[in-house]
Amino acid sequence: MSALSPRDPREDPREDRYPSRVGGEARVLPRRDPVVYGACPALLTDKQWAFYQRDGYLFLPDFLAPQEVRVLARATEELRARLGEHDAPEIVREPSSRAVRSVFAAHRLSAELDALTRNPQLLAIVEAVLGSRTYVHQSRVNYKPGFEGKEFYWHSDFETWHVEDGMPSMRALSCSVSLTENNAFNGAVMVVPGSHKHYLTCPGLTPEGHYQQSLVRQEYGVPTHAQLTTLIDRYGIASPLGGPGSLLLFDCNLMHGSNSNISPYPRNNVFVVFNSVQNRLQAPYCGLPARPEHIASREHTEVRTPMGG
Amino acid sequence: MSALSPRDPREDPREDRYPSRVGGEARVLPRRDPVVYGACPALLTDKQWAFYQRDGYLFLPDFLAPQEVRVLARATEELRARLGEHDAPEIVREPSSRAVRSVFAAHRLSAELDALTRNPQLLAIVEAVLGSRTYVHQSRVNYKPGFEGKEFYWHSDFETWHVEDGMPSMRALSCSVSLTENNAFNGAVMVVPGSHKHYLTCPGLTPEGHYQQSLVRQEYGVPTHAQLTTLIDRYGIASPLGGPGSLLLFDCNLMHGSNSNISPYPRNNVFVVFNSVQNRLQAPYCGLPARPEHIASREHTEVRTPMGG
Repeated sequence: MSALSPRDPREDPREDRYPSRVGGEARVLPRRDPVVYGACPALLTDKQWAFYQRDGYLFLPDFLAPQEVRVLARATEELRARLGEHDAPEIVREPSSRAVRSVFAAHRLSAELDALTRNPQLLAIVEAVLGSRTYVHQSRVNYKPGFEGKEFYWHSDFETWHVEDGMPSMRALSCSVSLTENNAFNGAVMVVPGSHKHYLTCPGLTPEGHYQQSLVRQEYGVPTHAQLTTLIDRYGIASPLGGPGSLLLFDCNLMHGSNSNISPYPRNNVFVVFNSVQNRLQAPYCGLPARPEHIASREHTEVRTPMGG
Repeated sequence: MSALSPRDPREDPREDRYPSRVGGEARVLPRRDPVVYGACPALLTDKQWAFYQRDGYLFLPDFLAPQEVRVLARATEELRARLGEHDAPEIVREPSSRAVRSVFAAHRLSAELDALTRNPQLLAIVEAVLGSRTYVHQSRVNYKPGFEGKEFYWHSDFETWHVEDGMPSMRALSCSVSLTENNAFNGAVMVVPGSHKHYLTCPGLTPEGHYQQSLVRQEYGVPTHAQLTTLIDRYGIASPLGGPGSLLLFDCNLMHGSNSNISPYPRNNVFVVFNSVQNRLQAPYCGLPARPEHIASREHTEVRTPMGG
């Protein structure tokens, strides 16, 4: 955990359009990629499409029917019970207890979650945003248990996916489906609308084995207080609240995080990251070995096709 | 920290109307004291008075004028700067950093905060609720710094004041004055309206020196998940939000807590506990030595008189 990058990422011969953790100071760089690559899909209004481009996210309440949510909820409970007993690599626990915080590669461990990644409506939107066929870069179930769920600090997913996974461009999209209510008390996700247009480079380098710690509590690849204050003073914070079955779509570079959850209400969601087939992973830009397959897919990159399609 | 009570609190010859941490199971007992001891004061409407009795709290936005808030804010910053440098006993820091979380006995360390405890409007309400003259049982400034402020877990203040400080009856009242905005993102206080009518006894005993740890993260005197779930399923959660200068009054036995604060906005407030002169502290019911004067006043119990009165 204490060793830093074995080789200096600045010696990487590739052009790095989003350098971060290369030993320099924290800076704010402009986004160099489009936000959407295709045209507005039939399922969305022009207003929703414009909202996504401007704010970097879109919240669709009641995207799944109650029956669909029940099936997913049962599948995620089964996953937690099955994997939580022993220390499967896909399991991440809370910092100060044995409670399960996340199960990674969830769509490869559960047929029901695999089906979600092939939901025809979801895929239609995702392919419109990314302007291509897609595959699952990462999937996980996040359990923010009642009483003891801890915060997720502010981060742009893309910063980590670029530096630690070698994702070249901002051409990926996260989908978070709520299985429980997101209310004002259980640590709902907070986003900074418009932040996806800026790339906050992080100071420092990347320690070896960083990912094992970072999934519990991130210390590297974290924006500075000054960067966050500037960003949030400019754009503010939004927190979409809604019932089970709601869908939050957000750009890979949107700044987001969440507070802890001392309420009795768990905040569980299924999180799927779709990446464009034009944007497959390369060698990590930090110069360290790639993170494991269950965190960043390199082998299991089958194009997602609609269920039954 | 590991030694338990040197004598068994169950051997205490006094009648204990609110036994807790006496080695038994967690139970829910009825409140045995009135919620208000006097008549509705001129400053409140009958509706507000009834609300306080039913819900156990009252939120008064804009209670202090902006100029009064500025004076208090300056005084609390000065306190933090002056005491934060060295490890004064009145200082409590965040669990994982040097950031100051609380300054206790604040009204004895700052003339401006002393003046707040003599605010004529505030005293009129407090004396009406408690039906007597009052003194300051405890005062503190709570700094919930942006980015790193951690949660305060659910608790009834009275449980601790009774068990660890020997406060006999529920005849005390907390006043929290906001110095910063309380918004949906910075870990505003959450209360369980109506919970003040029930006394949740806590399992276990009290370890020696417990208070030093409990001010950072409470482990004893904490209700169980089952108790909290029952209580919150019945009453729900409320979270009064408002600008600087708002006043939250709440009963000593109201269940409350707050989530963490990863937003850039600090959540600072001044917290004053008034106790009835008819309800002065006795020996702690847990059988341990009394907590220090700056946490629970035994000597500095001068009756509060209105400023200039």
